[in-house]
Amino acid sequence: SVNPDLASERQTASFSVEKLTAWLDGGAEHTRIRRAVVEAIQSDPVFSRENQYFQSQNERYEAAVRKAVHLQKKMREMGWTENGPEFKYIYRALSGDVAFLLHRVFMRSILVLGSDKQIAKWIPLATKYQIIGSYAQTELGHGTYLQGLETTAVFDITTQEFILNTPTISAMKWWPGDMGRSATHTVVFAQLFIHGKSYGVHPFIMQIRSLQDHSLCPGVTAGDIGPKMNFEHADNGYLMLQKVRVPRENMLSKFCEVQPDGTYVRSGSQKINYFPMTTVRVSVISDEVIIPLMKACTIAIRYSVVRRQSKLKPGEQEAKILDYQTQQEKLLPQLAAAYAFHFINNYLQELLDRGYREIQRRNFDTLPELHAFSSGFKAMVTQYCTSAVEICLRACGGHGYSLLSGLPSLYTKILASCIYEGENTILFLQTARFLIKCFMAVSAGHHVPPSVTYLAAVKPGKCPAKNKLDFLSPDIYTEAYQHTAVRLISSTAAKLQDLIQSGVKKHDAWNQCTVQLVQAAKAHCHYISVENFAETVEKLETKAGIQKIMKHLCDLFALHGIFSNAGVFLYDGYISGAQMDMVTESYLDLLAVIRKDAVPLVDAFDFTDKSLNSALGSYDGQVYQRLYEWAQKSPTNKQISPAYEKYLKPLLHNTLSKL
Amino acid sequence: SVNPDLASERQTASFSVEKLTAWLDGGAEHTRIRRAVVEAIQSDPVFSRENQYFQSQNERYEAAVRKAVHLQKKMREMGWTENGPEFKYIYRALSGDVAFLLHRVFMRSILVLGSDKQIAKWIPLATKYQIIGSYAQTELGHGTYLQGLETTAVFDITTQEFILNTPTISAMKWWPGDMGRSATHTVVFAQLFIHGKSYGVHPFIMQIRSLQDHSLCPGVTAGDIGPKMNFEHADNGYLMLQKVRVPRENMLSKFCEVQPDGTYVRSGSQKINYFPMTTVRVSVISDEVIIPLMKACTIAIRYSVVRRQSKLKPGEQEAKILDYQTQQEKLLPQLAAAYAFHFINNYLQELLDRGYREIQRRNFDTLPELHAFSSGFKAMVTQYCTSAVEICLRACGGHGYSLLSGLPSLYTKILASCIYEGENTILFLQTARFLIKCFMAVSAGHHVPPSVTYLAAVKPGKCPAKNKLDFLSPDIYTEAYQHTAVRLISSTAAKLQDLIQSGVKKHDAWNQCTVQLVQAAKAHCHYISVENFAETVEKLETKAGIQKIMKHLCDLFALHGIFSNAGVFLYDGYISGAQMDMVTESYLDLLAVIRKDAVPLVDAFDFTDKSLNSALGSYDGQVYQRLYEWAQKSPTNKQISPAYEKYLKPLLHNTLSKL
Repeated sequence: SVNPDLASERQTASFSVEKLTAWLDGGAEHTRIRRAVVEAIQSDPVFSRENQYFQSQNERYEAAVRKAVHLQKKMREMGWTENGPEFKYIYRALSGDVAFLLHRVFMRSILVLGSDKQIAKWIPLATKYQIIGSYAQTELGHGTYLQGLETTAVFDITTQEFILNTPTISAMKWWPGDMGRSATHTVVFAQLFIHGKSYGVHPFIMQIRSLQDHSLCPGVTAGDIGPKMNFEHADNGYLMLQKVRVPRENMLSKFCEVQPDGTYVRSGSQKINYFPMTTVRVSVISDEVIIPLMKACTIAIRYSVVRRQSKLKPGEQEAKILDYQTQQEKLLPQLAAAYAFHFINNYLQELLDRGYREIQRRNFDTLPELHAFSSGFKAMVTQYCTSAVEICLRACGGHGYSLLSGLPSLYTKILASCIYEGENTILFLQTARFLIKCFMAVSAGHHVPPSVTYLAAVKPGKCPAKNKLDFLSPDIYTEAYQHTAVRLISSTAAKLQDLIQSGVKKHDAWNQCTVQLVQAAKAHCHYISVENFAETVEKLETKAGIQKIMKHLCDLFALHGIFSNAGVFLYDGYISGAQMDMVTESYLDLLAVIRKDAVPLVDAFDFTDKSLNSALGSYDGQVYQRLYEWAQKSPTNKQISPAYEKYLKPLLHNTLSKL
Repeated sequence: SVNPDLASERQTASFSVEKLTAWLDGGAEHTRIRRAVVEAIQSDPVFSRENQYFQSQNERYEAAVRKAVHLQKKMREMGWTENGPEFKYIYRALSGDVAFLLHRVFMRSILVLGSDKQIAKWIPLATKYQIIGSYAQTELGHGTYLQGLETTAVFDITTQEFILNTPTISAMKWWPGDMGRSATHTVVFAQLFIHGKSYGVHPFIMQIRSLQDHSLCPGVTAGDIGPKMNFEHADNGYLMLQKVRVPRENMLSKFCEVQPDGTYVRSGSQKINYFPMTTVRVSVISDEVIIPLMKACTIAIRYSVVRRQSKLKPGEQEAKILDYQTQQEKLLPQLAAAYAFHFINNYLQELLDRGYREIQRRNFDTLPELHAFSSGFKAMVTQYCTSAVEICLRACGGHGYSLLSGLPSLYTKILASCIYEGENTILFLQTARFLIKCFMAVSAGHHVPPSVTYLAAVKPGKCPAKNKLDFLSPDIYTEAYQHTAVRLISSTAAKLQDLIQSGVKKHDAWNQCTVQLVQAAKAHCHYISVENFAETVEKLETKAGIQKIMKHLCDLFALHGIFSNAGVFLYDGYISGAQMDMVTESYLDLLAVIRKDAVPLVDAFDFTDKSLNSALGSYDGQVYQRLYEWAQKSPTNKQISPAYEKYLKPLLHNTLSKL
C-alpha cells in the first residue's frame, strides 16, 4: 500500500502525469515501447540489481559482463536490433551496470574514421562479438591534451607494419574501459612517425589478447587500474606496449592514409579525429547525466514528503520536510534543471544531426561550432547536474548517505562525467575561444553561425522590469541572461586586447584571462539553456495543464540562476538592487507554487522502483520499512564478525568483572 | 629520489617551512611530540592502512576494531595517557580508521550529564574497556529534532525501573556508531513518562549485549545498518527495544532526577542536554574537517606541480598545471580556507573553554551563544571544507577519481560531516534565530555578547577603496563583510516583522524567511572567519617571512569570498561595479603570488606519506610510478576473473572464426 503522505500528493496534480510522460518521451507510442523494454529487462533475473550495493569490485565486474553477454541473447529473443526503436531504451532500462560500452565506442570510431574496407572487415566481427573492442586514448600522463600523447607508431616500410611502443611509464594507456580484463582489441591513439618525421596522433586497430585463450599478446602488458570512486563494474585498464607490430591496413584511414611507400596522404580535415569525441560528449549528456539527475530528484522529492521533521505550526503534527522553504529551495531548482537539460539535450541532438549530415557531404564548416557547443554544454550540464545530485543527496540527511538510498552511487558516478571525455575547465576554455573569435568576427561585421549572432547585440541599457510579476516574463529574463553573456564575453575580449596591446605576450595574456573566460563560457551556455527552455514552453500547446507547469519550471530555472549568480546581473546595474528584491520574491513565490506539483513532476519521469533501486525513493513511499529490510540483507549482518573472537572478547574478558 | 618538478618548488620558499609548522602546532615542542606520536603509530604494522582502498566493509570493520584494541596496548607501552600531551595527536596519526569513537562520546555524556555517583560507577568500567559504550540518539524517523524522538522510557514505580520501548518502526535507533556489532552498553535517549505524564527527552544507560558471550540482551534487537558512502569501518547500528527494563539509577541525573516516589526534580537548565552535542560539533571541526581539507590541498597541490598538460608558451615544454590561472583559482582559495579554519578552530576552542568553565560554576548564560556559534560554524566549516575537498578531487582530473589518489575517501567521509551531529540547514537556522534575537536586543539598547555587538553598527555608507591595492587592507574587506552581515540580518529581521505585522502567523513568517535567514547566518560566520584571520595575522610577529605569506592568504580568503559572492556586496552599492573590478584584479594577482609558495605552504601541514595514503600526494612526487605499482596490488589483478570462463569465452568462441 502507498504511504498516505505520498498518496495525497498525487491527488492534487494540476496536470496529467501520463500526458507529460508521453510528451517527454516524444509521443505516447515511444512511452509504450520504452515501458515494454523496461519490463522485459527488469523482469529478467539476470539483469537484477538487487545486491548491487553489497558487491565488491570483482563481483560487479562479473555481473556487468554477465549482463552484457545475456543482453545479446535477450535482444535476439525480443527481436530488438541496433536500428530498432527499442534500442535506445535498453541502456536506461539496465541502469548502467553493464560491460562493453567501450566496445560501442570502438565500433563508432571505426565507422567514423575507418575506410569502407576497414568497416567491412571489422564491424561484422565486432557486431557478432567475435572480437571485443576498447578505445585506448588517455595515457597515465596525458588526458584531454591529445597532441601530448606519448605512445608512438613508427612505420616500418620493410614489413609494411607500424611498430607501436610505450616509451615511458607516463605513456602507458590508462583508464580505457573494457580494457583491463575484457577486450581482445582496441583502437590505440599514437604519434605517427614515417621516416623519422612526426605526423601527429592517429588511431590504430590492435589486438591485445588471444582469441583462443585470452592471454595477452606478445609485447602487451595490460591489467585493471584498481578501485575507483564508482564504475566498479568497469574494467578500466592500463596497457603498455613493447614494440608491438600491427599491419599497415590497421591505421584508420578514412581521412588520411600511409601508402606502401610511406607517403602520407590526407583527405579531409584532421579535425575530424575529434568528431567521435563530439558525439560521445553529447551522448554523455543524455545518458549519463540527465537521467541520474531525474532519478535523484525522484528519490529526494518522494522522500521529502514522507519524512516529517519538527513542527511548522505549534500544536500540529510534525511537518513534511518539503513544506519547509529551505527544502523547497534545495530541491525544486534541481527539478527545474532536470527539465531544462532534457530540452537542451533535444537542442544539441538537432545541432549534431545537422552537422553530421554536412560532414558526410565532406563539408567540415560546422565542426568548430559543434565542437564549441558540445564542449561547453558537456561541461556546463555535467557540472550543474553533479552539484544537483549532491544537493539531492544532502537534502535527504543521514539516510541519503546510506548506499541503500541509491543517491551515493548516483553521485559518485555522475561526478566522473565532469572529468571523462574532456576535463570541464579545458572544455569551457575551448568554448570561450570560439565565442571570442565569433565576437571579434561579428564586431568586424563578418558572418557567424546563427547560434551566436546575439553577440552583435551589444547595448548597455537596463532591465525594464517594474514589479515582481515582470520577472515571470521570459522576454525580461532571457534578455537579462543575454545581456550578461554578451557583457562577460565582450569585457574579457577587451581585457585580452588591452593586455596584448600593453605588451603582454599573447599566450600569457590568454592565461591571465582564463578565470573570466570560463565565466563567459558558462554565461553563454546558461543563456542558451534559458532561451531554449522558454522557446520550448512557448511552442507547447496548452494541454492538460502541462504548459502552465512547464512555464513555472522555466521561470524557476531562470530566476534561480539570477538569484544564485546575482553579482553578474548587478555588476553594471543592468538589474538594480530593488529589482533583485523582485527577483527574490518571485523566485521564493514560485517555490511554493511548484511544491504542490513536485511529486507528479517526478512521477512523470516514469522510473520503476527497480530503476531507482532506492529504499527512499520507491513509488509506495514505504521508506522506513524498506531501509530496515534492506539493511538486514547486508553482508555485515550475515555472520558474527571474527572481530569479536579475535579482539573484542579478549578485551572485555581480560578484565571482566561482575557488574 | 624526489621528482625534480616538485623539488624545485621547495627551493624558492619565501619562509621557513619548519617554523610555520611549529607555529601551527602551537610551538616547536608540540611539533616534536606530534611527530613522535605519528612515528610510533605509523611504524607499527598493526596500524597500517596500506590495503585500505581494497578492503570490504567487513574487512574494514575488523581492522578498525583491531586497531582500537591494539591502541590500548600501545598507549600503555608508550606511557601515553588521556590527559597527556600526546593524546590529541593519536587520532590524527591513525588517520581515522579506528573503532570505539562513540565509546568516547558515551563516556563524555556520562561525565557531563551523570551524577557523581554515576560517574564513579561507569567511567572506570569504560576506561578499562570492561564495557564498550555507544550513544543512541538518532532514530530511523528522527535526527536533528530531538523533541520528536519516539522511543519511550516509562517509569515503573513498583520495580523502580524504567521500561524502554520502541513503539514504531520509525522509532528504532538508527546510525549510532560502534553499536551495530561492538557495543555492550549505550546511552539511549528516550521520552520520559512518569504516571502517564511526559517530561521530554532524557538519557539512560542501558546494556545491550552480554558481557559473557556478546549475545543481545533480552528484548534487544540490534545490527548493522549496511553499506554507506564511507565509514565502512564503523558499525553504525540499529537498535529496537521491546520493553527493556533499566534500573532507576541509570537515568543520567546531574541536572534532573526521578526520585523513588516518581517525583521529577530538575536542577539546572534542561538545555544542558545539548551541551555534549556542542562540544562534539566543535571537535568535528578540528578532527574531521580541517585536517581532511589540509590533506586534500597537499595532495592536489603537489600533484599539480608534477602533472604537465598542454603548452602555456608555444615551443616550450608542457606546463605544470599549477601554472594555469584556472588551476590556481581552484586550489589556492581552498588552501587559504584551510588556514582560515585552522584559526577559527582556535577561536572556537577558546569560546568553548570559557563557556565550560561557566557551566561548571552552574552559570548557564553562555549556552545560547555557545550553541549558536558551534552550530553556525559547524555548518559553515563542514560545508565549505566539503566543497573544497571536492574541488581538490576534481582538480586532479581522472587520477583524482581513483581511490588510490586518497581524494575520494577524503571526500566521501567529509561529506558526512554536513549531515551528522546536526543537519547544516537546521544549524544555520538556529544561528540565525540567535542573531535575529541579538539584533532586536541590540536595537532596543540591550546587552548582547561581545561577539555580536557589531550588529549595533548599522550604517549605510560605501566602501572607501579607491584602487586595487586598497582591497589588500584588512580594514577595508573586514568592514565590507561586516556591512553585508549586518545588512542581511537586519533586512531579514525587517521582512519578518513586516510579514507578522501584515497578519501572517509567526511560524509561517519564519518559514517564508528561512532561505534568507540561512544566507544571513552564513554571512555572519564568514565575517567572523575573515576578521579572526586578519586579527591572527596582525598579532603574529614578523618571523622568517611567515607573517607576510599569512597576510597574503588572509587577503586571498577574504577576496575570494567577495569575488564568489559578489551579489551580496554589490546589492546596495556598498561595493560598486568599478570596485568589484579592483577586487577581481587584486584577487587574480594574489593567485600568482601565492602560487610560488604553494608547495611549501602544504609541506608545512607536515603530513607523512602514510597519513596521506595517496599515490598522487607523496612527498617525493613519484606519481605515475606509484599509481602503477599500487594498481597492480588491486584484487582485480590478483587472479583471472571467473567472468572469462563463464561468459567471455563462450561469447567469443561460439562464433570463433580465423582472423
